[in-house]
Amino acid sequence: MEETEKLLQFLQKEGFIWGPEPEIYGGKAGFYTYAPMGKLLKNNVENYIRKHFQEENFWEVECPTIMPKIVWKASGHLDSFTDKVVECKNCSSSFKADEFVDEINVKDLKKFFKEKKIKCPNCGSVLSPDLKEHNLMMKTTIGLDEEAYFRPETATTTYLPFKRYYEHFRKKLPFGVFQIGKAYRNEISPRKSLIRLREFIQAEAQMFIFEKQKNSFKKYEKYKNLKIPLLPEEAQGKKEQAKKITLNEALKKKHFKSKAYAYAIALTYELFKGLGIEEKNIRFREHPSAEKIFYAYEAWDLEVKLNTFGWTEMVGVHDRTDYDLKQHQKFSNQPMSVFNIENNEKEIPNIIEIAFGCDRPIYALFDLFYDVKSREKGKTIFKVPVHLSPVKIAVLPLVNKDKIPEMAESIYKELNENTDLTVSYDDTASIGKRYLRQTMKGTALCLTVDYDSLKDKTVTLRERDTGKQIRVKRKDIIEKVNLFLKKGKF
Amino acid sequence: MEETEKLLQFLQKEGFIWGPEPEIYGGKAGFYTYAPMGKLLKNNVENYIRKHFQEENFWEVECPTIMPKIVWKASGHLDSFTDKVVECKNCSSSFKADEFVDEINVKDLKKFFKEKKIKCPNCGSVLSPDLKEHNLMMKTTIGLDEEAYFRPETATTTYLPFKRYYEHFRKKLPFGVFQIGKAYRNEISPRKSLIRLREFIQAEAQMFIFEKQKNSFKKYEKYKNLKIPLLPEEAQGKKEQAKKITLNEALKKKHFKSKAYAYAIALTYELFKGLGIEEKNIRFREHPSAEKIFYAYEAWDLEVKLNTFGWTEMVGVHDRTDYDLKQHQKFSNQPMSVFNIENNEKEIPNIIEIAFGCDRPIYALFDLFYDVKSREKGKTIFKVPVHLSPVKIAVLPLVNKDKIPEMAESIYKELNENTDLTVSYDDTASIGKRYLRQTMKGTALCLTVDYDSLKDKTVTLRERDTGKQIRVKRKDIIEKVNLFLKKGKF
Repeated sequence: MEETEKLLQFLQKEGFIWGPEPEIYGGKAGFYTYAPMGKLLKNNVENYIRKHFQEENFWEVECPTIMPKIVWKASGHLDSFTDKVVECKNCSSSFKADEFVDEINVKDLKKFFKEKKIKCPNCGSVLSPDLKEHNLMMKTTIGLDEEAYFRPETATTTYLPFKRYYEHFRKKLPFGVFQIGKAYRNEISPRKSLIRLREFIQAEAQMFIFEKQKNSFKKYEKYKNLKIPLLPEEAQGKKEQAKKITLNEALKKKHFKSKAYAYAIALTYELFKGLGIEEKNIRFREHPSAEKIFYAYEAWDLEVKLNTFGWTEMVGVHDRTDYDLKQHQKFSNQPMSVFNIENNEKEIPNIIEIAFGCDRPIYALFDLFYDVKSREKGKTIFKVPVHLSPVKIAVLPLVNKDKIPEMAESIYKELNENTDLTVSYDDTASIGKRYLRQTMKGTALCLTVDYDSLKDKTVTLRERDTGKQIRVKRKDIIEKVNLFLKKGKF
Repeated sequence: MEETEKLLQFLQKEGFIWGPEPEIYGGKAGFYTYAPMGKLLKNNVENYIRKHFQEENFWEVECPTIMPKIVWKASGHLDSFTDKVVECKNCSSSFKADEFVDEINVKDLKKFFKEKKIKCPNCGSVLSPDLKEHNLMMKTTIGLDEEAYFRPETATTTYLPFKRYYEHFRKKLPFGVFQIGKAYRNEISPRKSLIRLREFIQAEAQMFIFEKQKNSFKKYEKYKNLKIPLLPEEAQGKKEQAKKITLNEALKKKHFKSKAYAYAIALTYELFKGLGIEEKNIRFREHPSAEKIFYAYEAWDLEVKLNTFGWTEMVGVHDRTDYDLKQHQKFSNQPMSVFNIENNEKEIPNIIEIAFGCDRPIYALFDLFYDVKSREKGKTIFKVPVHLSPVKIAVLPLVNKDKIPEMAESIYKELNENTDLTVSYDDTASIGKRYLRQTMKGTALCLTVDYDSLKDKTVTLRERDTGKQIRVKRKDIIEKVNLFLKKGKF
């Protein structure tokens, strides 16, 4: 069985991801359910991202996911957020055209399909070269007849209340906001599990900043000596490894144009390292000029090396200049310029953006921490960093008699009431089976109540990855558990 | 100015709620942004709900918000989740028909509009009696042409993976799941701020239980003596107050049909009391037989008495029997019956459901804890329970010189790094203005660094509601703050 297939089976079986949903009706590609273990993990990842941005003084907002047509006209999504679709006239299947194109820079897709006579993966007939434009936004109606669309990313909805932010943050730029929430894309043929979804969670942070502030940006100083793995445009295609250089050097070499942008790169890197992803599996890849979207003044992606799919885009970090606010000023007739105290002029601020989704980092955690080797020895250990573990501690009575369950239940209750940790209770099957079951779900610690516990009021704490056990006094449990979760070991 | 208007202005100005969105494009009714303070409050409310259900061993899931047409055919939403709409032929305005109907039980709406000649609130012409059926679901397309709808509540999407849950919970019923997530309703004329939205957050918990287990339900015992304010059908319309009786009595008097249902009522009551809502402002109202939906075997609403809108529905608690799973079995051709070890038969389980949204409880917090009296004395205090405060502690340097900011900043950093509390930093305006500003946002505590702080390493902690101040040693800050947040006082 293929590695990817093994991983997906593990995710279904252990209660992480179910789907595609609705399963009982056959399932639609690109829609999944986060099952109980997956949802706990997802909450932990989202809260980790939240905390990361909050500590850097970004403030969270929650904007609507639906906006009327004019918003998407202004943002450019209505006209250009499209995929080219190729159809099979024989069996009516549809596919994303660029899935059939290996070469980069095929400008004339119609010509490509005409010449190559690509066959339909479904029925084998030759695909029609009459390509169609397919807008990826999900269309709907507000009220009886107003055309509206679900957002394909959080970004546009975050820009719109700029003047509200400006008042809220007492007219002082730069300031930062972020949003973690649903976005929707009507992909033609989504695949690769959580990597390409039709419904997903975006996490995007924006700094609103005057152009001149970009290179006198104080928060940058903290990170200037941070080494970052960069793969600039000129190194791409030469099989060259990303090189680690400091942000300071990167600015000198003109890889980045501003300190504020370099700061956004630093935040992104720290965020992914904090997820437990090893530095060797992270790199920043510059958008080649040919790929770069016209409004992106600077654009680098953070990529993670997955076991299943290789280097995969996780984040886009963009300096979008004043493009978006100018567009919305034009379409809404509402002035977006505000007073810049530093040069006594009214200006439209720039937006520097860190844009990613939560589902890909979660997939990366599955991919990187699902321990295949242990699996081959008959064990599966999900070695996700313990601060992200779905369940932090499982309480296990050794047997279901002799007052052992009573003590275990009372410890379970105590942990629930006096901590914010997610705790589970499991009293079925042999203790060995239960240990295995918990390691497969990534549970950080198992707490066992046995006959000695009744005598001397101690319990066993068992660590997931090593199986190492320590004996702990009942009254010290919470302290020991918290210490373990902080340090990652006893 | 009206009380409601005052409240909405406060919410906009203090950064709780902005909208209707997109404001710069004129705004669409029923769409709001949770601004920075509102979003922090919302996260706290959602996490409180999450913790409440988790402690009762309900497990969270996250299902897609979009489902293909057949799902909504099976659930009944496609055919009957509709409003009657009345139109003005003159100015093309549309309204929800029942907004014009005072009397209960008007069966023939067409006749009602024909006879009463109700005038259009917009242009004054007589409204047409030719009513239209308007489905409240937001329609969209999956792929090129598959009809699909956004969920109008989380419920249906939660039922579908029943067989997955069954395996996950090791084939042992009853079990509980819950979902907190987006839902969408295309209301014709939404009003009342957060009370009626087109896009909102539902929080719904479901217990899957065999019918025979409903009256041998162990978890009920913990709550049997809990007193609940009930307004049963026979007491309604007589201006009778809700009467507090124990769950045990309520079962004896046949207000509830099962212990499991009574348990769901208890959980709901405890949840709303835990939000800090006074018992006198909560009641349970039985659905009168005439209102009751055909599949609801038992149905009571929890209502909260708001200052602005009076008694308002917050939660519906329903015993939905095996109706939903039977429907999905029929439409999907997938068997939904599972083995009941207690009677050796295969059965389709029942679903007992606690259904509510997060936006209404949040509105209730604004409505009940925005202190109007203080406002009239020139102060506004938002007295939200401190465990839900958007910001837990604001760090304020008395002045911006003489090493005071340095000490304040280092305390701010320490609090951020060593606690999960939301902390803010404010160094603009006089200290009195800053105290006022924080009380208006509901910040639980202000921490002031002054000249004495430099000498003796102490700071002032100031409590929001009373203005009471205590002097605390720097090294004891975190301990004192946590203690305060737990007890609600020094």
